[in-house]
Amino acid sequence: MRLAVIGAGAVGRSVVELAGEYGHEVVAVADSSSATVADGTGGRAGAGGDDSVGVDPDAVVARKAERGIVGDADPEDALSADYDVLVEATPTTLGDAEPGFSHVTRALERDRHAVLANKGPVAERFGDLRAAVDDSDGEIRFEATVGGAIPAVSTVEDIEPGHVTAVRGVLNGTANFILTRMAAEGLDYDHVLAEAQDLGVAEADPSFDVDGTDAALKCVILANVLSFGAADDPADAREFTLDDADVSGIRDVPGSALRLAAEDGRTVRLIGEATGETVRVAPRLVPENGTLAVSGTQNIVQIETSHAGRLNISGRGAGGPETASAVLGDVGRLE
Amino acid sequence: MRLAVIGAGAVGRSVVELAGEYGHEVVAVADSSSATVADGTGGRAGAGGDDSVGVDPDAVVARKAERGIVGDADPEDALSADYDVLVEATPTTLGDAEPGFSHVTRALERDRHAVLANKGPVAERFGDLRAAVDDSDGEIRFEATVGGAIPAVSTVEDIEPGHVTAVRGVLNGTANFILTRMAAEGLDYDHVLAEAQDLGVAEADPSFDVDGTDAALKCVILANVLSFGAADDPADAREFTLDDADVSGIRDVPGSALRLAAEDGRTVRLIGEATGETVRVAPRLVPENGTLAVSGTQNIVQIETSHAGRLNISGRGAGGPETASAVLGDVGRLE
Repeated sequence: MRLAVIGAGAVGRSVVELAGEYGHEVVAVADSSSATVADGTGGRAGAGGDDSVGVDPDAVVARKAERGIVGDADPEDALSADYDVLVEATPTTLGDAEPGFSHVTRALERDRHAVLANKGPVAERFGDLRAAVDDSDGEIRFEATVGGAIPAVSTVEDIEPGHVTAVRGVLNGTANFILTRMAAEGLDYDHVLAEAQDLGVAEADPSFDVDGTDAALKCVILANVLSFGAADDPADAREFTLDDADVSGIRDVPGSALRLAAEDGRTVRLIGEATGETVRVAPRLVPENGTLAVSGTQNIVQIETSHAGRLNISGRGAGGPETASAVLGDVGRLE
Repeated sequence: MRLAVIGAGAVGRSVVELAGEYGHEVVAVADSSSATVADGTGGRAGAGGDDSVGVDPDAVVARKAERGIVGDADPEDALSADYDVLVEATPTTLGDAEPGFSHVTRALERDRHAVLANKGPVAERFGDLRAAVDDSDGEIRFEATVGGAIPAVSTVEDIEPGHVTAVRGVLNGTANFILTRMAAEGLDYDHVLAEAQDLGVAEADPSFDVDGTDAALKCVILANVLSFGAADDPADAREFTLDDADVSGIRDVPGSALRLAAEDGRTVRLIGEATGETVRVAPRLVPENGTLAVSGTQNIVQIETSHAGRLNISGRGAGGPETASAVLGDVGRLE
């Protein structure tokens, strides 16, 4: 498949670097201010050598690192290049979910596929996206938006949403790292947050992670998958956005609560839960050595099924290559 | 899809009972001595009522329970019925893997699909099966042969076998139940085996489970998936059979070994491991509260990837509805 990768952060760059290994070709890459487009697909010549028509992955990544741009073309050139699949890997935005939403719908209007790593459009405008898919020969996939390398969405799809009663889990590695360290070292939130920021595990402004917003967006996406997937008629499906989620973060979890929990063989995890009717994210007591008590930046997704009991999937919930591998798995499913 | 279900044990019966919920129709069912075939598809009229053309699931299950047969037709009638997918759910046999192997190849010769719950053909004759698929418009799927409800095969396929370096895990619930009880109660193997037999967790002849054969067959299947999936040319792929597996069971694990392990924060699990080059099953020390130390009859599969770290999937590794749900997931993937 010929890919146009929009967004050149950690995930976008990893998709550019790994696509060839999965048998795909990157024909265009854009960040917010620049682009590179392979020869014959709309603009600047690729540097791939031999008979490759794709862009040169190493050159793109090097330009981004050295000059802060991916190439000398305009982002618009990448969006209008001749690709099979648009990979939307720009940062998640809330509300109208722009510019990601328009990138995806422009691909669908051209009957091309879109694979999203950007949570905004699937969490905030799922109904609009489904409508755009209905009018297109293209499809959308978004495994990378939930739990990084963990195949949460495709496993729910394979089981079939009508046979899944709930999905819950630990869906934010930063919050989980902080809770794990607080419990292990008996330290307070502020102390561990500072440590996590030093290690690069937490952002300078950690609110998206520690207030539960990121986990809530993932649960909203799962709720949309469950609701639309189980409805006989999409018009009957309930659409979820972040506003429908009941969210509490971990800022107010005192070290004393973790010590008290430990005395009872328990610990605290930020648990998100989605059904076709509700979305909730909150710190909750879980057994200390239980399935949900994954450590550090690990994520876990627990799928409750009607006929096959409970399925648990744990793994790396974030990271460039991990998330890119989910993107490229989605591309493979579109073939 | 119209299904012909061959084999009326726990898995076959559950497929018959659940197929309708997944939007499929059972048009024929056979056990080793009898069959029922829906009206218009080759033989005896179905009892589905209204405009259904499928067999009546409840009637099939009731006949099997009361009279030991699924109907008054000949098994041959079910095999030659007009179905889209043949579900092979007869007991696993080794060596020539008959009669399962012929059931599957007869479906492929008619350009129909086959979904296997029977491990024999995929473990013992994978090369022959691949050749039959190459000559057919039909496909085969076999998620149910490895780990019951756990989507081991499809997750490896989605990651792509060339990006999976190894798959390991706990793949036999009976052996795991025995080791879990031995460790928890400080009892010896013979004592716990008798208890497991009373509970119906172990068979009267437990050798298939406790000697590691069942886990080895699952690992052989995974090795075939890895080897054939990663090969550019199937002719270059190494084919595995049970003979290629290095297998030790749990009969000789003394209670004292579990006590010694516990003093060091460890326990013993029967771990199977497959790569594209080796298959090994043996009792191994694992951390007592670690990911691989699942309890009781739970199974776990750990997938080592090139780019996305380690993925762990745990759940129910056996059971009629659990395994039937894997079969019906495969049927869904064939649509």
